[in-house]
Amino acid sequence: MDFGSSQLNSTTLDPFVKKVYLELPAPSLNDNTADVDRMIKKIRKNERFSSAELSCYDFDSISATLRNSDFKVTPLLVEDKHGCRVIGVEPGDSSRRNFGVGVDIGSTRLAFYLLDLSSGKLLQKKSVDNPQIPHGEDILTRIIYARDPENKERLRRELVDCCNDTIASLAKDHGIGLHEIYCWSFAGNTTMTHFFLGLNPQNICKEPYIPVINRIPVMPVTGIGLCTNPGGVAYIFPNVGSYFGGDILAGILVTGMYRSEEVSILVDVGTNAEVVIGNKDWLIGCAGAAGPALEGGVVQVGMMAKPGAIDKVRIDRQTLEPEYSVIGDERPKGICGSGLIDLVAEMFEAGILDIQGKINTKLNHPRIKTVDDVPCYVVVFGRDSATGEDIAVTEVDIKILLKSKAAMFTILTIVARKVGLELKDISKFYVAGTFGNHIDPEKAITIGMLPDLPRERYIPVGNTSGIGAAQVLKCGHLIREVEDICNKITYIELNVNAELMAEFRGALFIPHTHRELFPSVTAWL
Amino acid sequence: MDFGSSQLNSTTLDPFVKKVYLELPAPSLNDNTADVDRMIKKIRKNERFSSAELSCYDFDSISATLRNSDFKVTPLLVEDKHGCRVIGVEPGDSSRRNFGVGVDIGSTRLAFYLLDLSSGKLLQKKSVDNPQIPHGEDILTRIIYARDPENKERLRRELVDCCNDTIASLAKDHGIGLHEIYCWSFAGNTTMTHFFLGLNPQNICKEPYIPVINRIPVMPVTGIGLCTNPGGVAYIFPNVGSYFGGDILAGILVTGMYRSEEVSILVDVGTNAEVVIGNKDWLIGCAGAAGPALEGGVVQVGMMAKPGAIDKVRIDRQTLEPEYSVIGDERPKGICGSGLIDLVAEMFEAGILDIQGKINTKLNHPRIKTVDDVPCYVVVFGRDSATGEDIAVTEVDIKILLKSKAAMFTILTIVARKVGLELKDISKFYVAGTFGNHIDPEKAITIGMLPDLPRERYIPVGNTSGIGAAQVLKCGHLIREVEDICNKITYIELNVNAELMAEFRGALFIPHTHRELFPSVTAWL
Repeated sequence: MDFGSSQLNSTTLDPFVKKVYLELPAPSLNDNTADVDRMIKKIRKNERFSSAELSCYDFDSISATLRNSDFKVTPLLVEDKHGCRVIGVEPGDSSRRNFGVGVDIGSTRLAFYLLDLSSGKLLQKKSVDNPQIPHGEDILTRIIYARDPENKERLRRELVDCCNDTIASLAKDHGIGLHEIYCWSFAGNTTMTHFFLGLNPQNICKEPYIPVINRIPVMPVTGIGLCTNPGGVAYIFPNVGSYFGGDILAGILVTGMYRSEEVSILVDVGTNAEVVIGNKDWLIGCAGAAGPALEGGVVQVGMMAKPGAIDKVRIDRQTLEPEYSVIGDERPKGICGSGLIDLVAEMFEAGILDIQGKINTKLNHPRIKTVDDVPCYVVVFGRDSATGEDIAVTEVDIKILLKSKAAMFTILTIVARKVGLELKDISKFYVAGTFGNHIDPEKAITIGMLPDLPRERYIPVGNTSGIGAAQVLKCGHLIREVEDICNKITYIELNVNAELMAEFRGALFIPHTHRELFPSVTAWL
Repeated sequence: MDFGSSQLNSTTLDPFVKKVYLELPAPSLNDNTADVDRMIKKIRKNERFSSAELSCYDFDSISATLRNSDFKVTPLLVEDKHGCRVIGVEPGDSSRRNFGVGVDIGSTRLAFYLLDLSSGKLLQKKSVDNPQIPHGEDILTRIIYARDPENKERLRRELVDCCNDTIASLAKDHGIGLHEIYCWSFAGNTTMTHFFLGLNPQNICKEPYIPVINRIPVMPVTGIGLCTNPGGVAYIFPNVGSYFGGDILAGILVTGMYRSEEVSILVDVGTNAEVVIGNKDWLIGCAGAAGPALEGGVVQVGMMAKPGAIDKVRIDRQTLEPEYSVIGDERPKGICGSGLIDLVAEMFEAGILDIQGKINTKLNHPRIKTVDDVPCYVVVFGRDSATGEDIAVTEVDIKILLKSKAAMFTILTIVARKVGLELKDISKFYVAGTFGNHIDPEKAITIGMLPDLPRERYIPVGNTSGIGAAQVLKCGHLIREVEDICNKITYIELNVNAELMAEFRGALFIPHTHRELFPSVTAWL
């Protein structure tokens, strides 16, 4: 079982929306409490729900439900820090039918977690492409697209439709009625959260980088446009800032680093590298541009981790011939981020690359070519690729990757230094995201992207965003923990100063100019 | 100034919906709090609003409002016992434009109180006929009419339309935009409250007499169909039971009897007589059928207190000729409740009636006739009436009135006895409703309807239902006092037993068989 699933599995069951079956005494001349009051009174008898208040206003239908079901009903309860709200009432005992959906709103993919909240079981996980991709693979393009209010609304509508469509099909597969789904939880970065709620994202990407809202109150699903039970509610993970969103907060929640005595680090790498360091007493967050080397689109042969992407590479030290695996068992189309890290590490270890990232063109090997004056290494010849073209990595591509890895390592070094620690003092190093699951820490260490720690300290945590979203549904009071995390975290801006630039320059080498930082990387010896 | 107006005048100004003008610091790199969070943070700085939460979800428009008004805004706040909610945000300083509407939902008339909640001033009071009257003058007819769900919806729609139409015209007259009206408050009896919210009233009038709901949460106006500011809220006075509604709770609030050391009584007489006795430590409520003698429809010459109704009568002791006043200075059409009490008291004092309510037909006077074997007294001859017919009160009519007054007196006696008091121990005797304003306590005592207390103890309190509704808007925390009253009050059922029947029989006489109870009534001496 992967890290996320095991964390979700071990989460206490105390659902965000609770169903409590009640048998009420029938009205009589001796007890002529009004119908709705009768139910509220009974709910409040449970000390935990003593402050229960109605937040659905169809009193007549509640009364009819009570009377048609012989005063045996199942109210739906949502707790928050100010009390407890009744959001609906069902006839008879429906307490076993209680479902919720956690969603990771990724910029590339949306991941849905359908939960049975009566048992706490994850029924199914399903990922689908983010429907906004046609409006821009990267988020900045979509932000520009959203300048037109109609486009902003289109981006919102596409996400909401995608949620409705996906869950309609999942529910059908599991024999669940949409009205039996009472809660949703969403975690995404700040911009995706804005797109999802139809909020103006323009101020996120220009100084001083201000979101519309960071702490979003629990909302009625009808206010979002979700087509599940109309009394239902949605929780949306808060953001800490424009570049530090709900997805990372979900990661902090899932790792449990905010409850640990020891100091841990969580990194999530995409176009931006987001880093959190801390323990139960403090948390420092930081985000910086890691460069787009690890996503598709910039590196010439780069592509997203999807079918056709080379995700693992080994190079024979003698023959310099590569072996690789391709996602989806197709003919290769390109190389995804983890494949690129593998490739560069292997090229370095096989002596094809020097510590500056230059290809040794003197090797006189058919895979080492110079095209338009730029040296490159051919991983797949045209005859074997899906496109008929060579799949080759150039020195230019490698430079881009080295900038990304240097940025990552610099951010880690500086953040640790800010709190007076060295990277070797970190007890656990959580690597999140698609990246975290595909990357081989060994190779990331070889190129000097991640620090040279004992390998067991690296924990790939997978899609913590989706798991975190699922966790708060399974255990509603985790919402308060998320709020505590949000209150506790100090977000620091990385100032581009002399110290940072010096660190960055040293980190541009493979693995680093300060070789003593990477004692286990021995290729250069 | 009448009692109600003076109570409203002296109510502390602390409106139900508050507008608090704020000037927020502009965002900067040093303070990159998100837009909406920035406002919430500032609101919470005020200790009173430290738990403020958003309950409007149009974050994008809040953000736009902030940015378009240079971060100078006026949020709208509603407090309840669990905290404080933000229901809207307006640009700039709009704190001087804050209006609300208190409504008495009477079964005959609706009374509207338009308040300026920035100054606390009552801008205007307006009464209109209850638009439901065509479906039945009395409430029971309307309940029967409402058995058909379409009719139930029609009754609701008519009330809501009446509220919208009336307030649209009032607002226009005062140069107020409907969007500047943020709150409503409604007080009515239990059935009227049900009609207003479209709730099924059928169980109210059959054993064991159970309303759909007694304690109604503060509702969004949009859930009711009111066309004022869509972020606005409505408070609806709770009911204690099917025959003890929000109108009486409003009366208890307005009189302040729940805060007094001394024991007071509040009576509200219509088809039902509602009685409350108590002080700051306890409150006992009781309702009983007073009979319909005091409303139009049953007594042959009876009519509602509207233009054309005789509301005061004096009879010359020598000539036995009547003098009367007519509401609206029209030709008389009939006699309203207070006129009937006047008339019977005067007939008794002039020797036309004996203590059993029999007309002395031996008097040989042109106004004393016997029609169809029933003796009667002609108040207005046909030549002077609006209809051309005599307006006469018959012995049958008088019997009906005496039953009503006996019921009233019996209820008062029994309720006082339940708490170990005699009626003469009551320090203040509040008489509510139209009845309270029109009735002459002297005459009501003469016929033995009200106890023979020093006259200054009688306080006509007018439309406490409407005044109470206005009060909670002017001072929002009175809602909690209403809730306290509701919690404190003990509603007792009047059991029809031997004791009650004996009291009732004694009270059927004018003023009573126990003459010592009415020492100041000397007519029989």
